[in-house]
Amino acid sequence: MNTLLETQLKRAKVAARLLKNMPTCTKNQALEKIADALIAHSDEILEANKKDMAHAKEVNMTKAMQDRLLFTHERIVGVSDGVKKVATLPDPIGEVMESWTRPNGLEISKVRVPIGVFGIIYEARPNVTVDIASLCLKSGNACVLRGGKEAIHTNKKLVEIMKDATKDILPEGAIELITELDHAIVGELIHANEYVDVIVPRGGAGLIQFVVKNATVPVIETGAGICHLYVDKDADLNKALTIAVNAKIQRPSVCNAIETILVHKDVADKFLPELKKAFEKVEIKGDDATCQIIHCEHVTDDSYATEYDDYIVNIRVVDSVEEAINHIYTYSTKHSESIITENNETAALFMNSLDSACVYHNASTRFSDGGEFGFGAELGISTQKLHARGPLGLKEMCSYQYKIEGNGQIRE
Amino acid sequence: MNTLLETQLKRAKVAARLLKNMPTCTKNQALEKIADALIAHSDEILEANKKDMAHAKEVNMTKAMQDRLLFTHERIVGVSDGVKKVATLPDPIGEVMESWTRPNGLEISKVRVPIGVFGIIYEARPNVTVDIASLCLKSGNACVLRGGKEAIHTNKKLVEIMKDATKDILPEGAIELITELDHAIVGELIHANEYVDVIVPRGGAGLIQFVVKNATVPVIETGAGICHLYVDKDADLNKALTIAVNAKIQRPSVCNAIETILVHKDVADKFLPELKKAFEKVEIKGDDATCQIIHCEHVTDDSYATEYDDYIVNIRVVDSVEEAINHIYTYSTKHSESIITENNETAALFMNSLDSACVYHNASTRFSDGGEFGFGAELGISTQKLHARGPLGLKEMCSYQYKIEGNGQIRE
Repeated sequence: MNTLLETQLKRAKVAARLLKNMPTCTKNQALEKIADALIAHSDEILEANKKDMAHAKEVNMTKAMQDRLLFTHERIVGVSDGVKKVATLPDPIGEVMESWTRPNGLEISKVRVPIGVFGIIYEARPNVTVDIASLCLKSGNACVLRGGKEAIHTNKKLVEIMKDATKDILPEGAIELITELDHAIVGELIHANEYVDVIVPRGGAGLIQFVVKNATVPVIETGAGICHLYVDKDADLNKALTIAVNAKIQRPSVCNAIETILVHKDVADKFLPELKKAFEKVEIKGDDATCQIIHCEHVTDDSYATEYDDYIVNIRVVDSVEEAINHIYTYSTKHSESIITENNETAALFMNSLDSACVYHNASTRFSDGGEFGFGAELGISTQKLHARGPLGLKEMCSYQYKIEGNGQIRE
Repeated sequence: MNTLLETQLKRAKVAARLLKNMPTCTKNQALEKIADALIAHSDEILEANKKDMAHAKEVNMTKAMQDRLLFTHERIVGVSDGVKKVATLPDPIGEVMESWTRPNGLEISKVRVPIGVFGIIYEARPNVTVDIASLCLKSGNACVLRGGKEAIHTNKKLVEIMKDATKDILPEGAIELITELDHAIVGELIHANEYVDVIVPRGGAGLIQFVVKNATVPVIETGAGICHLYVDKDADLNKALTIAVNAKIQRPSVCNAIETILVHKDVADKFLPELKKAFEKVEIKGDDATCQIIHCEHVTDDSYATEYDDYIVNIRVVDSVEEAINHIYTYSTKHSESIITENNETAALFMNSLDSACVYHNASTRFSDGGEFGFGAELGISTQKLHARGPLGLKEMCSYQYKIEGNGQIRE
């Protein structure tokens, strides 16, 4: 293993032991100090960010990517406010989740504890560095961060500021940034079972699949979002239209935006022309039935399996809610799906049959978000079934332990 | 992928969709039918088991292994009773774990659902085949079983009986047994992310490590048990002795038995000679301080890192509870540890500092068991931090889903 990486992982493991029992007030004090330091040192952050931006222009990074990379004073204030917000959230650690006494007198408590060391692999946006570090800190976890190389100067400066602001309060390894740019280091991180308890990849499908296929450390898969909206024959078509617009157009680049709209054949004639009008700036790919009603491109199986994250939508006309359910089973990444109907039985069938993390009735899939769920903040949206599903708030970043009090019990 | 395996995995995936919403009474009826059929067909099971036993003798399998493989009428009755017991346990599926209403009126419910398809890889004991199938069925999960080749005739017969008894009630793929003996099939199973939601290896350290290192499907690691008992300076030495005997000798072959006893230096002179007497049939490996008090072999670092599952124990004299905690952090598999002390502050320090799944105060580690915890039954003992820790009961074999009821909400 890379020597520097091993040193960092060892520090993180030691830090995790200390963070496990750190009082809430100390963790909050550290978060406050980080929030203040980011503002106090904003000039240095902007300076470091300029270097990354200059490099981004040199390599002709897309405008969209450049925008994600860019830090401004306003954005730093936003990031700092986010850290302060995390300080105000309830501490999940130490909560007795359940407790019971056995007939032999053993008192069993199930207590929420940190997971330990998080390894987080992410891409462009440097605000993620601070967001994740503050969520890990509040949940008593150490973090080892591997940000994108395009943000390396900004990330280094942010971590330097966070570590410096908390050096009297936090163990040294509470926040570790991997600065080695060689991609091989990611391979080492995701195999470091001795030191790392969980890997969370945050980024594009390529990164996530690389991690899922190669990691030996347990992974929480996040973010893949092929989400669906089904407009039932009993739908209120005004609701359906408003929600379709919100779920597709309000912010197409995010994982909880929809990629495909399934429309019941009985309402297609009425609904699709209205949708077409409202979707003026959206490229529509439709199946045969759709193309007979509105002018659009032909959809393919590949289209159904694509997360566009863009102003593109697939439309398919279905014969029944069952056909909609089958379509979603085939193409969904199990993130979020919504049915629009005034028929509660149909809604129940849809919601019970699907096994996606979030299933909606008469609401936009865009609510699949830690903030919108009331969790205060989130690490990402899990699309796997193990451990946690949907928005990962502070509680979902925890594990539990059984504490058992006895008075000499032995097993017969 | 092996054609037969792919057919089985496809069937299991289809079955999982149907099992998700299967009523409790239907699942219980299926379990009752399985329990009855095992008794009704016990002669056939014994016949099949004879073939496995004959082969076991041919290849000179150890007596202990042969005993694990052996089915008798009495054991079949035990297995059948186990299935009936699972039928009486509460159904975990459909329980609303939490629910709340957001300021915008969205009603969010967190509902317990099955995980989907379990892939279980296990070794000799054929009773595991029925135990796992019944737990998966009750928790609404389909299972794909890969038992040891030494039990193949018995396993085939058991699955044939279970499938036949439930063919009018359960989907065909609810219980699938992989009959292909080639080891390569395990490699295919643990990479079948499209079909399998979780892999649980049940067996020796070699099997578990192979699966952890190679699987791309999420894994629940179970069973590795280097457990510790720490006898504090403030221990009631009678309790300590009784518990040490129970935790080491009552059943040394199981994962919740202890491998190492740490003794505070202040009580070592008094405790160790008594322990030596009580541990007559146990081979003791001691550190220097121990060897000065009682006659024993010298322990090595490797001994501390070994799960004996046998009448062998390591003993180390420590200067403090902190030294005991550090020792456990170094060598524990994070399964179960116990402190014997009358000092509640020391107990709290020990229990809060360690990050093992089960931490005990004045009780035997042998209680780390689904039955002893009151879960009714268990799939195994998880030693990883993600998803579930300690005994895996029916609830721990589940995931959850968010169901969100709206009336047209869109995100601002």
